Amino acid sequence: MHIILLSGGSGKRLWPLSNEIRSKAFLKLLDGEGASKESMIQRITRQLAAAGLLPSTHIVTHATQGEITRSQTGGALSVLEEPHKRGTFTAIALAAAFFHSRLKVAREEIVVALPVDSFIEQPFFQLILRCPAVLARSAADLALIGTSPAGPSSQFGYMVPGPMLEDQGFCRIERFVEKPEAAVAVDLIRQGALWNCGVFAFKLGFMLDLMAAKGLPLDAGDLLGLYGELPERSFDQEVVERTANCAAIAYGGLWDDLGSWDAFTQHLNSKVTGPGQVEDNCINTHLVNELPCPIHVIDVPNVIVAAGPDGVLVASKQQASRIKEQLKNSRMPMMEEKRWGIRRTLDYSRHNQTGESLTSKVTLLAGANSSYHVHQSRVEICTILSGAGECLMDGQVIAIGVGDVLEIAAGVKHSIRAITALEYIETWLGERLDSEDCKRIALNWEEAVRSQGGGE
Amino acid sequence: MHIILLSGGSGKRLWPLSNEIRSKAFLKLLDGEGASKESMIQRITRQLAAAGLLPSTHIVTHATQGEITRSQTGGALSVLEEPHKRGTFTAIALAAAFFHSRLKVAREEIVVALPVDSFIEQPFFQLILRCPAVLARSAADLALIGTSPAGPSSQFGYMVPGPMLEDQGFCRIERFVEKPEAAVAVDLIRQGALWNCGVFAFKLGFMLDLMAAKGLPLDAGDLLGLYGELPERSFDQEVVERTANCAAIAYGGLWDDLGSWDAFTQHLNSKVTGPGQVEDNCINTHLVNELPCPIHVIDVPNVIVAAGPDGVLVASKQQASRIKEQLKNSRMPMMEEKRWGIRRTLDYSRHNQTGESLTSKVTLLAGANSSYHVHQSRVEICTILSGAGECLMDGQVIAIGVGDVLEIAAGVKHSIRAITALEYIETWLGERLDSEDCKRIALNWEEAVRSQGGGE
Repeated sequence: MHIILLSGGSGKRLWPLSNEIRSKAFLKLLDGEGASKESMIQRITRQLAAAGLLPSTHIVTHATQGEITRSQTGGALSVLEEPHKRGTFTAIALAAAFFHSRLKVAREEIVVALPVDSFIEQPFFQLILRCPAVLARSAADLALIGTSPAGPSSQFGYMVPGPMLEDQGFCRIERFVEKPEAAVAVDLIRQGALWNCGVFAFKLGFMLDLMAAKGLPLDAGDLLGLYGELPERSFDQEVVERTANCAAIAYGGLWDDLGSWDAFTQHLNSKVTGPGQVEDNCINTHLVNELPCPIHVIDVPNVIVAAGPDGVLVASKQQASRIKEQLKNSRMPMMEEKRWGIRRTLDYSRHNQTGESLTSKVTLLAGANSSYHVHQSRVEICTILSGAGECLMDGQVIAIGVGDVLEIAAGVKHSIRAITALEYIETWLGERLDSEDCKRIALNWEEAVRSQGGGE
Repeated sequence: MHIILLSGGSGKRLWPLSNEIRSKAFLKLLDGEGASKESMIQRITRQLAAAGLLPSTHIVTHATQGEITRSQTGGALSVLEEPHKRGTFTAIALAAAFFHSRLKVAREEIVVALPVDSFIEQPFFQLILRCPAVLARSAADLALIGTSPAGPSSQFGYMVPGPMLEDQGFCRIERFVEKPEAAVAVDLIRQGALWNCGVFAFKLGFMLDLMAAKGLPLDAGDLLGLYGELPERSFDQEVVERTANCAAIAYGGLWDDLGSWDAFTQHLNSKVTGPGQVEDNCINTHLVNELPCPIHVIDVPNVIVAAGPDGVLVASKQQASRIKEQLKNSRMPMMEEKRWGIRRTLDYSRHNQTGESLTSKVTLLAGANSSYHVHQSRVEICTILSGAGECLMDGQVIAIGVGDVLEIAAGVKHSIRAITALEYIETWLGERLDSEDCKRIALNWEEAVRSQGGGE
C-alpha cells in the first residue's frame, strides 16, 4: 500500500497564523507528546509512523511549502513538489505518475490518498489499513472513509449509503452530495449519510486509466512539464462523483478538518497560547498569539483573537471564516520557515530617494547553512546576536560570533553556516528588493566551499 | 494670569497606546486642523494660543515625559520637570514656588491650574479668562469650573452649589463629593451638582500660605531637592475639600476627561485608525492600530481593539478600563518619543551565554542629534537606512549615509546627528543592557564637538 498525503491549502481561513507559505498544517499549536506542541503535519507523521505506514508515504505539496515540510518532518517523508497549485485531482495524478514511472509500482497495488490537515485519532489508521481488503471484497473502484455528521454542516461532502453489508465492515455508496444547504443536510443525515473524510483508496491502475483517458502523461517529469497549463481540478468532482462503484467504511471516532478557527480552537487545551491573558469571564474565547507582545482580552465572549507577524484577527467564532473574503490583496508573509531555519520580518520601509530597506531576524539552525548565492544589486548587513558559525564570502571562509558584523556588498557570493544555532539581524538595502535579484550557486555548504576552491 | 498645565497620568487605562513614558495626552489620534491628527497636549496648546494664554503657560510633567512634551509642543511651552510623581498638589506647589522664587510673580496675581488631558472646546477658555473677575467679586479663596453631569458616573468629583447669584455668573459651592456611588450621584444631580473639571483658580499668595503652613519651601530648587521624600497628594483632597470659601463657574459646553477607551473613541471621526478593517456590522466597535500589520475585526460589536508596540487590547467598551488592574508588571515601553525623534523596539532577546540583544529602528529628526555619550559595556551597531548625517566618535566626525555601518565598541564616546532625517537600525549587545551603563557627556552637538577639540 502506498500513502499519498495531500498538503495544499493556503489556509486563509486561519489567517493570520497561516498564509501563502505557512498553511494551517504547519501551525505548531496542537498538544504533542509530553509538553511539546506539534503541527498537524507533525501529528499525522507521528501517527503514520505508529501505524507502520511512514516508509510508504509520499507527500505532495506546493514548491513554496517544500522547505517547511522537510523542516517539520525532519526528512522522514518523501516530498513531491508541485510547481503550481492545481487541486487534489492533479496532485494525486502527480503522485500516481511518480509511483508508476519512477518507483515502478504495479498497477494492481493499492494507493490511499488522505489530507494532511485532518484531525484524527490513531484508530483511524486501522481503517486505512483495511482499505485493500475492502476494495478486494467489494470489487469497488474506490473505497472512502466516512464519519458520522456532527451536525447539518454546509461545509462538507455527504455520502448516502446503500444497505450495509453485515460483517463486511463496509457499505456501497448510492450518491454524493457536496456542501448541501442545511435543510438538505438534515434530510441526508436522516437517511444515514456520512461526511466524506477525503480519504480515497484505489488501485494505481484505476487512476492511471483515468489520466490516460484525459490525455495526461503517465511520466512524472512529463506531467510536471505540463503543470502550469492544467486546470484546477478536485478529486471529488473529477473522480468520486463520476464513479458508480464506490464503497465506504464508516468511522465512529473523532474526525475534524480543522478548517476554521471555531473547529481549530476546540482542539486546544488552553484558552491562551502565547503571551497575554483572557479574562475568566470570557466564555468560549480563545487567544492564539505568536507576536512577542502581550494581548489582553477583557469581557468579550465567543471570539477568536489570533495574532502573528502578518496581522491580528478579532472575530466571532461563528463568522471568523469570513476573513478569507477580506484578504483580497495578500501581503508579503512576515514570517517564513525554511529548510535552514526561520526568518521573521521586523521592519520594511520604502525611502523616496534611496530605495527600500528590509530588516529581519534570522535563526539559522545548528549545522544548517543558507544557500551560496549572490545578489546583483542588494546590499546585506548582518549583525550576529548569538551563536557561532562561519561565513563563506567570495571563496573565503571566516569565523563569525556575537557582535560581528558582515557587510555583504552587491555582487559578492556568500553563505552563512551555523555551528551552534545562530541568530542575527539582517538588513537588506537596495533600489528594489525583489527576489529575482538573487542567483543561487550551491545549496550545500561543502559544495559551495569546493566550488570556490576555498576551505577552512 | 498664569496658567499651570498639569500633565501627569501614566494612562494605563488607555494601554497599549499609552504607557509610562507616553501618557494619553500624547496620543496623536484627535482630528486637528485640516487632515492632520493631533494629541491632547497639541490640541490644548493650540487652544491656549488662540485664547492668548500661551505665553503665560507653564506645564508641569514628570521628567520622563519632558522630552516628548517639548517635541510635541515645538518648544512653545515652558516645561517644569518633576523628578518624581507626587500628585496634583505637589505639582501645583512646584509651579507656585517657581512663579514666586524664579519669576518673582506677586502674591496677588491669579494662577489657574488645569489638566492637560481634558477634551474641551474653545469657549471653555472664556471661562478661564473670567476666573480673576470671579475671584475678585466673590472674594472666594478658590474658583472652580463645573460642568453638567452627563450621567451618575462614579468616576468624577461632584460640587454641590449654593444659591446662584444672579448676573454674577458664578455660585458658591456648599460641599464636594468625590467619586460617589451611582445612587448617591443620582441624588447629587437632583440637587443641581456639577462635575469638577479639575480647573483651580486662586491667588498665588493663597497657595504659598498653604505651602508654608505645611512646612514646604517656597524656593523651587529647595522644593525639588525634597521631592523624593514628599507624600503623594492630590489638590482636591489637600486643598479643595478643605477650603470653605469656594466659587464655581458653570460650563454648559462639551467637556470630557477622555479617561477611558469608551470616552476616547467617542471623539474619533473614524471607526478605524491605522491599518486594518472593521466590518460594517460591528456596531460601536473601534480599531486604533499603531502596529505596521493589519488588524481585521469581524462580527464583534461594542469593543475597542487597540494595538501598539507594547501589546494589543481587545475589550468591551464598558469594561476596557479594567486593563489597568491587569497590568501589574509593566514591561519596558516598546516605543519612545524623544527630543531628537522616535525609537521603536523591534526585537529583544536574552541569550543564555552571551547576554542580551536589543534591536530598534531609530528616526532622528533633521537637525537633531543624540546626546554625546558612552557605554561602559554595551556594543552598538547602527545600519543607516535613509538620510544623511554625521557621527562623532571619540572626537572624530565622520559623514554617514545609506548603507553605512557604525560599529561602536564599549567605552567609545559617540553621538549621531541627522542632517536630513536619518533612519537607522540599531542593535545593542551586552551582558546586561541596563540604562545605568550610559554616561552622558554633552546634550548639544556643538558642545560635544568642542569638548573633544574635534571638528569638521
